[in-house]
Amino acid sequence: MSTEPMHDIAHLGHLELLTNKMAESAAFFIDVMGMTVSGREGNSLYLRGWDDYERYSLKLTESSTTGMGHVAFRTWSQQALERRVKALERTGLGIGWTDGDLGHGRSYRFHDPDGHVVELYYDTEYFKPEPDQKPYLKNQAQRYPARGINVRRIDHFNCFASDIRANREFFEQNLGFRLTEQIVLDDGSEAGMWMTATNKSYDFAYTKEAHGVRGRFHHVTYAVDSRDDVLRAADIFMENGVHIETGPHKHGVQQTLFLYVYEPAGNRVEVANAGARLILAPDWKPIVWTEAERKRGQAWGLKTIESFHTHGTPPLPADLKKGVSE
Amino acid sequence: MSTEPMHDIAHLGHLELLTNKMAESAAFFIDVMGMTVSGREGNSLYLRGWDDYERYSLKLTESSTTGMGHVAFRTWSQQALERRVKALERTGLGIGWTDGDLGHGRSYRFHDPDGHVVELYYDTEYFKPEPDQKPYLKNQAQRYPARGINVRRIDHFNCFASDIRANREFFEQNLGFRLTEQIVLDDGSEAGMWMTATNKSYDFAYTKEAHGVRGRFHHVTYAVDSRDDVLRAADIFMENGVHIETGPHKHGVQQTLFLYVYEPAGNRVEVANAGARLILAPDWKPIVWTEAERKRGQAWGLKTIESFHTHGTPPLPADLKKGVSE
Amino acid sequence: MSTEPMHDIAHLGHLELLTNKMAESAAFFIDVMGMTVSGREGNSLYLRGWDDYERYSLKLTESSTTGMGHVAFRTWSQQALERRVKALERTGLGIGWTDGDLGHGRSYRFHDPDGHVVELYYDTEYFKPEPDQKPYLKNQAQRYPARGINVRRIDHFNCFASDIRANREFFEQNLGFRLTEQIVLDDGSEAGMWMTATNKSYDFAYTKEAHGVRGRFHHVTYAVDSRDDVLRAADIFMENGVHIETGPHKHGVQQTLFLYVYEPAGNRVEVANAGARLILAPDWKPIVWTEAERKRGQAWGLKTIESFHTHGTPPLPADLKKGVSE
Amino acid sequence: MSTEPMHDIAHLGHLELLTNKMAESAAFFIDVMGMTVSGREGNSLYLRGWDDYERYSLKLTESSTTGMGHVAFRTWSQQALERRVKALERTGLGIGWTDGDLGHGRSYRFHDPDGHVVELYYDTEYFKPEPDQKPYLKNQAQRYPARGINVRRIDHFNCFASDIRANREFFEQNLGFRLTEQIVLDDGSEAGMWMTATNKSYDFAYTKEAHGVRGRFHHVTYAVDSRDDVLRAADIFMENGVHIETGPHKHGVQQTLFLYVYEPAGNRVEVANAGARLILAPDWKPIVWTEAERKRGQAWGLKTIESFHTHGTPPLPADLKKGVSE
Repeated sequence: MSTEPMHDIAHLGHLELLTNKMAESAAFFIDVMGMTVSGREGNSLYLRGWDDYERYSLKLTESSTTGMGHVAFRTWSQQALERRVKALERTGLGIGWTDGDLGHGRSYRFHDPDGHVVELYYDTEYFKPEPDQKPYLKNQAQRYPARGINVRRIDHFNCFASDIRANREFFEQNLGFRLTEQIVLDDGSEAGMWMTATNKSYDFAYTKEAHGVRGRFHHVTYAVDSRDDVLRAADIFMENGVHIETGPHKHGVQQTLFLYVYEPAGNRVEVANAGARLILAPDWKPIVWTEAERKRGQAWGLKTIESFHTHGTPPLPADLKKGVSE
Repeated sequence: MSTEPMHDIAHLGHLELLTNKMAESAAFFIDVMGMTVSGREGNSLYLRGWDDYERYSLKLTESSTTGMGHVAFRTWSQQALERRVKALERTGLGIGWTDGDLGHGRSYRFHDPDGHVVELYYDTEYFKPEPDQKPYLKNQAQRYPARGINVRRIDHFNCFASDIRANREFFEQNLGFRLTEQIVLDDGSEAGMWMTATNKSYDFAYTKEAHGVRGRFHHVTYAVDSRDDVLRAADIFMENGVHIETGPHKHGVQQTLFLYVYEPAGNRVEVANAGARLILAPDWKPIVWTEAERKRGQAWGLKTIESFHTHGTPPLPADLKKGVSE
Repeated sequence: MSTEPMHDIAHLGHLELLTNKMAESAAFFIDVMGMTVSGREGNSLYLRGWDDYERYSLKLTESSTTGMGHVAFRTWSQQALERRVKALERTGLGIGWTDGDLGHGRSYRFHDPDGHVVELYYDTEYFKPEPDQKPYLKNQAQRYPARGINVRRIDHFNCFASDIRANREFFEQNLGFRLTEQIVLDDGSEAGMWMTATNKSYDFAYTKEAHGVRGRFHHVTYAVDSRDDVLRAADIFMENGVHIETGPHKHGVQQTLFLYVYEPAGNRVEVANAGARLILAPDWKPIVWTEAERKRGQAWGLKTIESFHTHGTPPLPADLKKGVSE
Repeated sequence: MSTEPMHDIAHLGHLELLTNKMAESAAFFIDVMGMTVSGREGNSLYLRGWDDYERYSLKLTESSTTGMGHVAFRTWSQQALERRVKALERTGLGIGWTDGDLGHGRSYRFHDPDGHVVELYYDTEYFKPEPDQKPYLKNQAQRYPARGINVRRIDHFNCFASDIRANREFFEQNLGFRLTEQIVLDDGSEAGMWMTATNKSYDFAYTKEAHGVRGRFHHVTYAVDSRDDVLRAADIFMENGVHIETGPHKHGVQQTLFLYVYEPAGNRVEVANAGARLILAPDWKPIVWTEAERKRGQAWGLKTIESFHTHGTPPLPADLKKGVSE
């Protein structure tokens, strides 16, 4: 009888995005994405989709650069949090406990093998709507804003990493994430991985960084209710002068209907929908995509845009940038 | 520190539906619902939505009556199955182990307090598509059939029960289901409950049976990808002469875009979509709907149709039927 | 060889709606419907959907009562306007020429046989967007507002009339509208008619007024791009406390996906979508619905709500109101 | 006072497509596009979308080559047909009267300046559904097939032409089509035109042929009800191994949500949706796109695929094919 699956991580909680164009980035998330400000503290603005149940899912922090400040997962319980901390401390990648942040209590921070800062917490604050934010139906966190793209909730994020395998094993062994899909090149090396702790088919992805730079961020994704909503998002990005990098189109991997844009500071943001697709199998066999299969492009034949492999935040150092599609 | 949540049930696996009009019911599920036959054995036909990962999700069995033969949940592991059996045996409601069925191994059957037959199993058979059923994308169980309503996967079921509270506590305590929403009448009695073991906001619901008859079935639901797909399903039901009981409309409870029909033998079947709604909170506080709130009707104001409270399968005995809306 | 079809009316231009709750009605059309103010004059506010090519399609006028001030059609040419005026003058129902209004030049006003005021004009002002209203694509009148329901353009209107046949013949003979569908009761009397001068399957409808009151208004309809947009409109109406009378559902007549609400002053407003349905046949044979067919309810089985036959604006006089569903 | 608009052409009726792979092409239109066979005669199969009111909209003819056999427009009346014939006879491009074809009476054929064969007719046969094709709602031509892509009706076609201006003037002057959009290059030459005789924003388009070959065909388009239906069509094409050339994406010109594929013999076929967009203005000012604007790519930024400018049917002669993207 095999080992039982771990159930300690409940879901992706929030992501901290760094921006060196605070006003423009804030306007993008509020007016174009249709998100709601639910907190301000220090150099940070806290933002949410209308159906995020916690106080916020995005912490936007003014900075001299761009990229991901940290990403946070909520655990299933206080005990689960402590079990994971014990495991993480053994990896030598632990950073330590924090006193919490606006909206959540004590958290434990660590590095993944590629150097991104990841956080675990359990104590959290449910969103409390202001009177004019109260929904008609009380099983909904907040009134539908009917503004901009009206993103519903945070869905997943994507980081670059130089060593995909090392990161995959780290998240599998220490946090209990399950691999649902991956790319394995002809030489046996891993070029991408999609992992989940929920019934969503992925809570995050890591894809191969080609320049040897650590800790780079690829994108954060917000979910809308239908594929048609992604098309409408494209119209709204277009009308607002937002740079659309690629999409809407359907990924072969995970079958997500995707749309990628750069927010004003250059961080990549995705709006996506997965239809009614869920991973319900407790023993899901990871889908392995080969190099040849990836070369077929996206599901409906769109060639993967070159910048998708190179553009990340923060930008590459000047000496690495030559000839790179950004 | 509170008790940790149980994680032994993985998901709703399949439901056995009894029909006394086998040919007509089969045609309904194949031609109108767009499901695929993936097995035949004895008096039963095994059917599936194109994205159900197991061999089937519906067992349609010829019978002298209608209603639910049994419903089955898959566990997270073999150990989880055995833990649940131990708990169930203590309730006195256990029936015992089976040798399995087409598509899955040994299973344990028991009664819920209202007398419905429920089954747990872990060993299962993943669907193996025939050559002409192979999907283009290998992360999908089966080629999209492009026939009828094209239902994607089983979503949930609904039974009637005389004592909602007893059934709720049974599923909470013995199987670890979490209550997400419920109806509590002014006199404190429970009239409906929605429970989940996944990130779907419910895997099943039980609503109040008004006539004191045990073991009745309300409906089984298949998911499609968008709310617009539910509207298209309504067109297809209409064109095929299927009786539409109510919908498409939006439930206040759970916010599902619903559409209810009676398949030819009279069993209620739903086609539904939940958008990108998921219950991700590990400590979700159940939403309690009051009697007054339920009287407001459905989300957009539609009055709940009377037959929704009375029509179930098998039909009521003749002496109970007087004046009942079927 | 039969008479050739007339081509003098180009399309429905605008409708004047009277309100005795100006501030609330204006907020409804701007914030909830997502319309844009494109003019103010006297007691009137001029509003538009983002793809109406003329300056406005709705004139909202402060009044002591509610209902339709007038409705206006644009002709295909100046010559067409003059031809229609000649015909109208012969009917004895002419009112006379006006000096125009904000956004259009000279117009000719007349009564239909039920006493509604109808206007014809040709000279018009195309909408000129302010800098922040400029669309990205120059084949679009105005930037997509991404606010509220985002109605696209005026679609049609519906009036009550005591004598449907008289009104039908009036619009056929004097204005060249073509009948596409109608309801004829068992006694041979007409109970509803749908007429068009375009490839839309109707530019207006008249339905039977039951109380002998002249000049009453039933509703004005704005089009959105998809049936799913109508569902989203229902969510937005719900969130904003707007009274939803009935829908979303599909009409059997004309197959429109409909959603009816009352704006704050009580005028009925519809948001609708017809898919890709067009009447292209130059010799379309009118569809005649019988009394029995109408009793089947709407396309998917919803019973037609009683108030649909009785609620109109202005409200009925007090002595007629007894027992009437409003 | 200016000349009045002509109203002699009612709509695009049908298009004859040549195929040198009859069985495969037929299977594509029936099984994948979801069209219905409504006639067979000689080497031709007659096919229809479920809401085409005439007997058919596509005549598929076995041939030694590919491309367009002819395209046909229905006139508003018999008199309109005769008026147009008189005008066409004066151009020297007339071919002459035919005795009609399956489904329509006498027709007049002529060449456009680029050599395509065009036909006008008035007498037509409305589609008469077989018992199992009868729709539930009698305002619909045929039961919704619920098979494949379920295309609704023919929408438009596109031909290549060497001299766009000459063709535009020919259709304007002799047939009364109105130009709604066009591409004019920096040197003043016209590179594309979109014309209509209806409220659709175009009934056909002509785009610049680069190799000096006459009479080539670009594509025929069928309409579905929503943009989401176009996405689903992409899934169905993908599952059926159909070559997707480009899309789904949104054209800047005309804002159509497009999806282009090659049917098995190589003819390009489009599935598209325009939302609720209509051209209602009788004096619409043609939108002129410049060379620079076209270089921005499609609406959401997709680069126009090279084969879109070169691939047509029949294929280019071998000596012209070098280096051409097909």
